[in-house]
Amino acid sequence: MTIHPAPRGVPPTAGGAEADRLARVALTWLTEPGTRSVFRLVEQQGAVATLALLLDGAAPEQALRDTVAARLAAGDPVTVATEALGRADRLGARLVTPSDEEWPAPVGDLRHLVLVGATRKVDRETAPPLCFWVRGAWPLGEALDRSVAVVGARAATGYGVHVGTELAYGLAERGWTVVSGGAFGIDAAAHRGALSAGGLTVGVLACGLDRPYPVGNAALFDRIAETGLLISEWPPGAEPLRPRFLIRNRVIAAATRGSVLVEASARSGATQTARRALAIGRRTMVVPGPVTSVMSVGAHELLRDEPHARLVTGVAHVLEEVGRIGSDLAPPARGPERPRDQLDDEATAVLESLPRRGVTSVDTVVARSGVAVRTALRKLALLEELGLVVRRDGGYVIVAPPPRGSAPARTATSGAGET
Amino acid sequence: MTIHPAPRGVPPTAGGAEADRLARVALTWLTEPGTRSVFRLVEQQGAVATLALLLDGAAPEQALRDTVAARLAAGDPVTVATEALGRADRLGARLVTPSDEEWPAPVGDLRHLVLVGATRKVDRETAPPLCFWVRGAWPLGEALDRSVAVVGARAATGYGVHVGTELAYGLAERGWTVVSGGAFGIDAAAHRGALSAGGLTVGVLACGLDRPYPVGNAALFDRIAETGLLISEWPPGAEPLRPRFLIRNRVIAAATRGSVLVEASARSGATQTARRALAIGRRTMVVPGPVTSVMSVGAHELLRDEPHARLVTGVAHVLEEVGRIGSDLAPPARGPERPRDQLDDEATAVLESLPRRGVTSVDTVVARSGVAVRTALRKLALLEELGLVVRRDGGYVIVAPPPRGSAPARTATSGAGET
Repeated sequence: MTIHPAPRGVPPTAGGAEADRLARVALTWLTEPGTRSVFRLVEQQGAVATLALLLDGAAPEQALRDTVAARLAAGDPVTVATEALGRADRLGARLVTPSDEEWPAPVGDLRHLVLVGATRKVDRETAPPLCFWVRGAWPLGEALDRSVAVVGARAATGYGVHVGTELAYGLAERGWTVVSGGAFGIDAAAHRGALSAGGLTVGVLACGLDRPYPVGNAALFDRIAETGLLISEWPPGAEPLRPRFLIRNRVIAAATRGSVLVEASARSGATQTARRALAIGRRTMVVPGPVTSVMSVGAHELLRDEPHARLVTGVAHVLEEVGRIGSDLAPPARGPERPRDQLDDEATAVLESLPRRGVTSVDTVVARSGVAVRTALRKLALLEELGLVVRRDGGYVIVAPPPRGSAPARTATSGAGET
Repeated sequence: MTIHPAPRGVPPTAGGAEADRLARVALTWLTEPGTRSVFRLVEQQGAVATLALLLDGAAPEQALRDTVAARLAAGDPVTVATEALGRADRLGARLVTPSDEEWPAPVGDLRHLVLVGATRKVDRETAPPLCFWVRGAWPLGEALDRSVAVVGARAATGYGVHVGTELAYGLAERGWTVVSGGAFGIDAAAHRGALSAGGLTVGVLACGLDRPYPVGNAALFDRIAETGLLISEWPPGAEPLRPRFLIRNRVIAAATRGSVLVEASARSGATQTARRALAIGRRTMVVPGPVTSVMSVGAHELLRDEPHARLVTGVAHVLEEVGRIGSDLAPPARGPERPRDQLDDEATAVLESLPRRGVTSVDTVVARSGVAVRTALRKLALLEELGLVVRRDGGYVIVAPPPRGSAPARTATSGAGET
């Protein structure tokens, strides 16, 4: 197959959809995923034209020209890409690109990822992926739609493994996809917890899907692919080189609604996933641990350094951060309870601080309920989602509860005296 | 002794200093410490006039009139106060009031303590103390000057006890007074940690000093009083009634530069100390723990609810919050820093009072440096620890700083240009 350079301004599929796919694979092989200048060229000119430009030695930066030249000495990118597609076929894996319906759109937010003070290449070259290799039946975008990353140390303690498993189990049980990196320790605990709950889990690898790393998790990878997904930006055959784990982490951060860091030593890769999640505005959650544990040092550092990193102690807190209120905050299917029966003490205090009639300001709610302002605002949002209060004139008004049973009319006092 | 009502506008000692002291004791017995209306009256009219007013049944609130009437049925306040002073004498304890030089001024900040949404009496009646009963040799205000509260659960875990002890040891070792409530668990660990370091610790009790509670800590209380202080707002004989612990907690929060919460179950008294510390702008620090531990639930709740509560994992973090920059922030012994760079003003004054040669007596140090005897002794002990002075012939001798590098001669600028 020949790669045709496309003129500027044409849609990215110019040269044909197959040529675009092949070019994306070739580009990922020629330059590591995340390279900003390559991503920009692909956005502007399409993958086919970008590949032609790089093959012409016309890359916009000297470093990139050097990288391309070095790779070209190792093989022909189009041949390599064609072979990779063949290997993927035999493996039962598929290539997914932005023109596919199952492309996970949120990874596009990596366009805006800027890590303050980034000096290392992996902290600067954080552009969105050009393509994903996917093994597993679920459509990728759908699997990642309601997903949370659970990440942490490889050398996790029994405590971390326990907490990671429990969190993943609880999230999967409530219909959330658990995303992690397939490593030993917390990653494996997260995948296993989700699998135990019969839930969906996605392993984001930093190497070819035909050689998932670490090999000690081979059986786990097979289980993940059977019911969930194994994905990678790297083509079959790609080795798990050290920098690739960090390049991969930006995908874990961006593809999910939020990341939970369970255990991490100082400056671990997992804290870097969390910092990437923070940098693109994803919910970033941290499980604390004993201050005597070296495996919680990174977690505590993150909580101290990042005001937006939220301490969480269990699945309820995680759902409070990432959940769609009303569907996720409600405990799963528990009979004919009224929404207010599901409220915690603070939400109840906030609700009870509102008089039967009239608009109440947040300040008044705070004063009457005795909860902190932040908490009051959060609980008011929850109550609003549950249909128990509405916003009006800069304050909140209580909504009369619907009558239970067969009472025909809804009145302000309905339900008050009932069981 | 007769109590003379004083006209409005006179200084609080009108009626004589002794009458003022007696009236403060009587007022504390008649109405619990912290009662706002009583404190306001004392500020406006003095203690003697306030007592007369309450005895006349002229308290400004019905609830207060009822309290006074109930107490009066149990005894005569002036007789009770006189007896309390006698008991204190026999106990070797003393009464300290705001007119004493050793009064700890920072407790006056309780004037401004407002707990948002306070509905319980203990959350509203948080006025400054009228007096303290003190057992121990240190001047109260001086002992509390550089102090940190270390508080937490009675039913502490081994983890909490370990962390509380270590923190207190580290703080005491660096010359900080460790304040706590004398309870089992974290409180006792904090006192013991400070004592182990040969440091100063203050136990703030919620009952009479003659019946420190819990009795299981009796030996600990004796050790605290020997080298540090046991203090209480309640006169000798007062029982450790349940609400008094919460009333007492406002003093722990206000008398210190900051409070560290080590372990706390949900809604424990220790979290309320921390919330009081927050409410008057003291540094409030929380040690996280395993999320699987019920004894860390309150700590994690506080970190989640209060943006100003700071997660700390060790003494370095605590010093970062409460320390005086230059003296406390420098980690102990880190390479080529000279110890004298870490000294505070008083220690510097003491060091500079010593001549280059010869033995200097403590009296001479006091005379030359202008610091109090106790301070001089503490600073000399510090300087000795730092290797800057040695004891000799009942006095102190300055230690010549070692030459830095291999410079043969010691000059005023030695070391300045060296690596």
